[in-house]
Amino acid sequence: AILEAIQSALAPSEGEGRRREWPSPSLGTNARLTGKHIIVTAGPTHEAIDPVRVIANRSSGKQGYAIAEALTALGARVTLISGPTSLATPSGAQRIDVQTAAQMEHAVDQALPADAAILVAAVADWRVETAPSKLKKSAGPPDLNWMPNPDILALLGARADRPRLLVGFAAETDNVVAEAQAKRVRKGCDWIVANDVSGDVMGGDTNEIHLVTQDGVEHWDAASKADVARRLAGRIADALA
Amino acid sequence: AILEAIQSALAPSEGEGRRREWPSPSLGTNARLTGKHIIVTAGPTHEAIDPVRVIANRSSGKQGYAIAEALTALGARVTLISGPTSLATPSGAQRIDVQTAAQMEHAVDQALPADAAILVAAVADWRVETAPSKLKKSAGPPDLNWMPNPDILALLGARADRPRLLVGFAAETDNVVAEAQAKRVRKGCDWIVANDVSGDVMGGDTNEIHLVTQDGVEHWDAASKADVARRLAGRIADALA
Repeated sequence: AILEAIQSALAPSEGEGRRREWPSPSLGTNARLTGKHIIVTAGPTHEAIDPVRVIANRSSGKQGYAIAEALTALGARVTLISGPTSLATPSGAQRIDVQTAAQMEHAVDQALPADAAILVAAVADWRVETAPSKLKKSAGPPDLNWMPNPDILALLGARADRPRLLVGFAAETDNVVAEAQAKRVRKGCDWIVANDVSGDVMGGDTNEIHLVTQDGVEHWDAASKADVARRLAGRIADALA
Repeated sequence: AILEAIQSALAPSEGEGRRREWPSPSLGTNARLTGKHIIVTAGPTHEAIDPVRVIANRSSGKQGYAIAEALTALGARVTLISGPTSLATPSGAQRIDVQTAAQMEHAVDQALPADAAILVAAVADWRVETAPSKLKKSAGPPDLNWMPNPDILALLGARADRPRLLVGFAAETDNVVAEAQAKRVRKGCDWIVANDVSGDVMGGDTNEIHLVTQDGVEHWDAASKADVARRLAGRIADALA
């Protein structure tokens, strides 16, 4: 532990949250993603109603952070673009914090080019006009003026400099696989990782997913988010090999 | 940094997430709250629009968790009623997780009687009727049907078995002190801890507060949330002595 601590202290600091939970003793042989740049988005977006209230998604960010960590462990250079979470930055990842979908879209744009983009963040479809001061309760319920947010996955899918592998996530409550298959085509992405969120997935530590590709659908049994991340990172390495 | 890392590595490990930042070497002499039961609420509430979308507040929960930790360090038995956060449970506190304002109100009710209640959580004033399935983006912006939430602070302030010391928090962007003074009287509580959230307080690690009591207003200079918590815990101990 002391030796690890010294190594950790000697390692380049990556800014706030810099735990190095994934020492990489096998990087020499397993660094299958060395030289690859991968964008990962994670967490929710927060669309402000006023300075204290937001519209958000339930995403804890855990699955996206685990994927960033697993990709880094395989040697990838990872840009982690994160909505608000309280999670520690995965060791080795460069983290860019954003609040809104528009900020996330801008950050993704700035992070290009990339060999792959894994869009795990739960991005709000809609934002609202933001009140400059805190709305008073006595004024009654907020009167929201909705506007559509940029569709980051579809925008990336349509770009000329599109990452070679583009992976979207889909949280669904009904017709999970069919919705994911339609989404894969509609967004112009390669894979959709779909999960059924009618249960208690969000914020939890396990995940049960369907991997939808052009070749069909794989059902992955429930596993820890870290295990799902490692398995997916392996598949990403296969695809970019 | 190396020396710190070695010291850190030699310190007793508490497992992931459970850091004991507040060792209590002086509990013998400083346990001024031994035998007292204190309820602390913290974090945001999440009011579901549908299974994935919520209306929430920006609260990270850090200030409330720090207060729970500081009270525990003084020997109090703390019930921490928390909205969704990714924070580790403060050592020694009993934590009850909730999502909504209604659930938080129920949990507070169940936790009574208490010598003090410190309501730090950023509770949504309004909830909306929840759609049972994920709303489709193609269906257009959500059509929200708003309903008022229980006012936990005011309900506690009006109860016969009201905690002896009742402390509310107020995040304001305008007329911070005047709003807090009016809120103190309106809610029937003893103190209001008010802060100006027009800057970047929420999610950050420092806080600058105004303590509004029946005796007047104290301005506390900006300090870490841990320091604000320790100072407030000391004042709570004075009040319950």
